[in-house]
Amino acid sequence: MLKPLHDNVVLKKEKVEQVTKSGIIVTGDVQEEPDYATVVAVGEGKYVDGKLVPLTVKVNDKVVYKKYSTTTVKFDEEEYLVISEKDILAIVE
Amino acid sequence: MLKPLHDNVVLKKEKVEQVTKSGIIVTGDVQEEPDYATVVAVGEGKYVDGKLVPLTVKVNDKVVYKKYSTTTVKFDEEEYLVISEKDILAIVE
Amino acid sequence: MLKPLHDNVVLKKEKVEQVTKSGIIVTGDVQEEPDYATVVAVGEGKYVDGKLVPLTVKVNDKVVYKKYSTTTVKFDEEEYLVISEKDILAIVE
Amino acid sequence: MLKPLHDNVVLKKEKVEQVTKSGIIVTGDVQEEPDYATVVAVGEGKYVDGKLVPLTVKVNDKVVYKKYSTTTVKFDEEEYLVISEKDILAIVE
Amino acid sequence: MLKPLHDNVVLKKEKVEQVTKSGIIVTGDVQEEPDYATVVAVGEGKYVDGKLVPLTVKVNDKVVYKKYSTTTVKFDEEEYLVISEKDILAIVE
Amino acid sequence: MLKPLHDNVVLKKEKVEQVTKSGIIVTGDVQEEPDYATVVAVGEGKYVDGKLVPLTVKVNDKVVYKKYSTTTVKFDEEEYLVISEKDILAIVE
Amino acid sequence: MLKPLHDNVVLKKEKVEQVTKSGIIVTGDVQEEPDYATVVAVGEGKYVDGKLVPLTVKVNDKVVYKKYSTTTVKFDEEEYLVISEKDILAIVE
Repeated sequence: MLKPLHDNVVLKKEKVEQVTKSGIIVTGDVQEEPDYATVVAVGEGKYVDGKLVPLTVKVNDKVVYKKYSTTTVKFDEEEYLVISEKDILAIVE
Repeated sequence: MLKPLHDNVVLKKEKVEQVTKSGIIVTGDVQEEPDYATVVAVGEGKYVDGKLVPLTVKVNDKVVYKKYSTTTVKFDEEEYLVISEKDILAIVE
Repeated sequence: MLKPLHDNVVLKKEKVEQVTKSGIIVTGDVQEEPDYATVVAVGEGKYVDGKLVPLTVKVNDKVVYKKYSTTTVKFDEEEYLVISEKDILAIVE
Repeated sequence: MLKPLHDNVVLKKEKVEQVTKSGIIVTGDVQEEPDYATVVAVGEGKYVDGKLVPLTVKVNDKVVYKKYSTTTVKFDEEEYLVISEKDILAIVE
Repeated sequence: MLKPLHDNVVLKKEKVEQVTKSGIIVTGDVQEEPDYATVVAVGEGKYVDGKLVPLTVKVNDKVVYKKYSTTTVKFDEEEYLVISEKDILAIVE
Repeated sequence: MLKPLHDNVVLKKEKVEQVTKSGIIVTGDVQEEPDYATVVAVGEGKYVDGKLVPLTVKVNDKVVYKKYSTTTVKFDEEEYLVISEKDILAIVE
Repeated sequence: MLKPLHDNVVLKKEKVEQVTKSGIIVTGDVQEEPDYATVVAVGEGKYVDGKLVPLTVKVNDKVVYKKYSTTTVKFDEEEYLVISEKDILAIVE
């Protein structure tokens, strides 16, 4: 298992197909790769002025994040992304 | 639905045509793409010195924003932009 | 109307011709485009240490600003510039 | 022995082969070089507001780190990486 | 007149010829353009920790400044430079 | 003698040959130039919040440092490196 | 005379030839231009937390400085360098 440090978050990319109404549309084009992923692990938070501030996202949240802000890690035959929570933009509800 | 984190804002681009007097003129040229969009969701704000400062823009505000400061997200057959409020320049009234 | 957020200012470019003595000389050359504009709207200011600091420039001020620090916005058949007040260099009196 | 200063950490790269289920899969491709390494020494920490904050990672932790954030050092016929702890993203458990 | 904002300073470039002993030598070469100018107007200063700190340079000071840190403004048939005082390096006495 | 200012440190590069077991292996290849050097002088430290914080490294320490963070100085027929202590990564013991 | 502002320092480059034992060796090669210079004037210091901190270097100190951190100024038939004290690395004693 990957246990993120500080304010890092481990994500697993969604493998979604074209879906309609209340689903997510993803084109197969490389340049339009979706910025959706599911949170699989969160760090313990960040110390701000000597106080631990826990993260906002939780495991299983679907999130939108900034492209090019992730580090790709292969683990147990799966590919994960590690990202700082500040580069997570929104939760998909 | 996209629920923005922190000081992020979700925008939906206006599909406006050429309009006159008290409307908005938009040329169809790609290089002059309008910087107008409508706020569809706002984050809960940003902690400054341990105090949550809510955002200034509200849902349904028409806003002008900095180009190249957005992340494009497709959701439910629609395209949205996510942007930090600091890159929103003005409200169109 | 464009209502600037925070410390942003909305400017309207002067369309000045060659003028002499106590006027402003502007060459028609694109590379020497004037850095003069008139303030048409100002933001409510910026919070510094929890206190709102209002802007220094006022509506109708003619100002000199840093090139390449503006976002161009078309509104109501007119073109405006939005700029942070920190990039306004001087007032023309 | 390499004794890291401040918040630096000395890592030794894993020489792992393709492993399955609860192991780590590493392709032999240079561009997909694994970002796994084992902590072999940690600095004494970083002074924040005059207080020494010890590091989070410990010797023998397997860690994932940001590529291109390391300095390679040869010592005693072995190759080590030195990295600031802020560029260590997660612990592999 | 140009009234600089904040910590900005308006300069007028010296048109000096080759002068000897206690004068200033300027080669006519474009790449060796002099970094001398005369202060013609100064901003009211900068707020540091809520206190207005006035500028150090005064009108009529001859100053040396960092190249490429100025904005050129034409006004009343003359060319001026606007610069932040932090980019003024020395006063010529 | 070179007396470093503030948090700077003067280093002298090791001219080590290939050594085995508990020595240091250095290839003669330019691209693999060793990042080892011996401290020959240290600055008096850095003022943090008005208090002088002395440096951690001492004269005669063998250190590993970030490449490209040094300034080379020739003095008394010898070549030295000057570096800020923050770019020294580890002490070789 | 050049009177440096704030934490700036005026330097005059040494025109040293090849010297041996307790002298300074300088090759004539442009790429190995010496980083030695003599301090000819110092600024009054820098305000840190509202307190004026005077500079460490004094007139007549021989100093080593970071290349590419200087502004060259011609004055009275001589060439000087202006540099911020933070880019002066060491005093040659």
